[in-house]
Amino acid sequence: MPGLTIGDLIPNIQADSTHGKISLHDYIDGSWAIIFSHPGDFTPVCTTELGMMATQAEEFSRRGVKLIGLSCDDVQSHTEWIKDIEAYNKGKKVTYPILADPKREIIKELNMVDPDEKDPSGGAVPSRALHIIGLDKKVKLSFLYPASTGRNMEEVVRVLESLQKAAKHKVATPVNWKPGDKCVIAPSVSNEEAKQMFPGGFETVELPSKKEYLRFTAV
Amino acid sequence: MPGLTIGDLIPNIQADSTHGKISLHDYIDGSWAIIFSHPGDFTPVCTTELGMMATQAEEFSRRGVKLIGLSCDDVQSHTEWIKDIEAYNKGKKVTYPILADPKREIIKELNMVDPDEKDPSGGAVPSRALHIIGLDKKVKLSFLYPASTGRNMEEVVRVLESLQKAAKHKVATPVNWKPGDKCVIAPSVSNEEAKQMFPGGFETVELPSKKEYLRFTAV
Repeated sequence: MPGLTIGDLIPNIQADSTHGKISLHDYIDGSWAIIFSHPGDFTPVCTTELGMMATQAEEFSRRGVKLIGLSCDDVQSHTEWIKDIEAYNKGKKVTYPILADPKREIIKELNMVDPDEKDPSGGAVPSRALHIIGLDKKVKLSFLYPASTGRNMEEVVRVLESLQKAAKHKVATPVNWKPGDKCVIAPSVSNEEAKQMFPGGFETVELPSKKEYLRFTAV
Repeated sequence: MPGLTIGDLIPNIQADSTHGKISLHDYIDGSWAIIFSHPGDFTPVCTTELGMMATQAEEFSRRGVKLIGLSCDDVQSHTEWIKDIEAYNKGKKVTYPILADPKREIIKELNMVDPDEKDPSGGAVPSRALHIIGLDKKVKLSFLYPASTGRNMEEVVRVLESLQKAAKHKVATPVNWKPGDKCVIAPSVSNEEAKQMFPGGFETVELPSKKEYLRFTAV
């Protein structure tokens, strides 16, 4: 029974964080954002994940994206744990805020609860959920991973690049697309319009149906 | 307002498909399963995605996984469209069933609705959702991608391998893990237990907190 899915406005949550009190809508205003939960501080997969996010923080910043971590531990725990993350990921600093949700309200609101894990007192534990939020503060894309499976931050960069490209041009990205590969032209664009829109041209794949819907272009 | 998230039992949907009537629980009984929606037949990204699934079908079958496609088009449309998919992905056959959901009930039940797309008559259109279902018929992991962003089937294989490994051993997989890389030992396993469980040994990373939670092993 989740509370959030793609298309929904991200709730304007208020929380303590390693950067002080954060009011989410103010914090992300004018930026894309990635909000991601982790099961707990001082646990193995999370240490590798938040370290990789620290490594890629500049890459995200360059793309106009704010990063926000989140778990049910308190700020003091986060602050202590960051020393471990930075030691394991030598030379990388955790420059993004990590929110504290000790009452487990935010993780429920954001569909970030792990169904199979409980803390020692029986409380809910966050899953490895990650939502990409657009400039309109709506969820554009979500990963819902369980505690066992660390995320792939290269995939996060890949889909972010796809979303940002589709927000600018009338294109979509085919299966296994990587930045630099050709995109496909959206079905809503006629061939006539496509000639105007993509002056570098496009290639139409010939198919048994004779329908001209598979059109590749470089943007 | 989604109807399904990780941890939930997948509903026992009944649907027409390119392989005849399918009763989902019977169909997936005793197997892992991957159910994935696509916005529409005869559209570009979907043709590349379902072709890649055809290419990787043997890989999934070897891992005991059944594939199930789904969109709101009818079976006749799917059957015609498969000719295009197979022509574009030369030599690969679409051996998995594609379900038909012309009433748009299943996509709502499975949290597979694209919030930003409508068909010409204003009906709901599926997103690029993909749920991995375990042997207990519960959702283990979900991708919720919009129409603009084709999925990464290599990431699907990666997380499946992680889920299946964690179902067998008390391990989890760190960030950006790939099959063959070392796993981390679950925090619930003591060092004493780990010595028994992983006779090949494990390495503990030294951290500022002096807590011994980051332990790598090969399984």
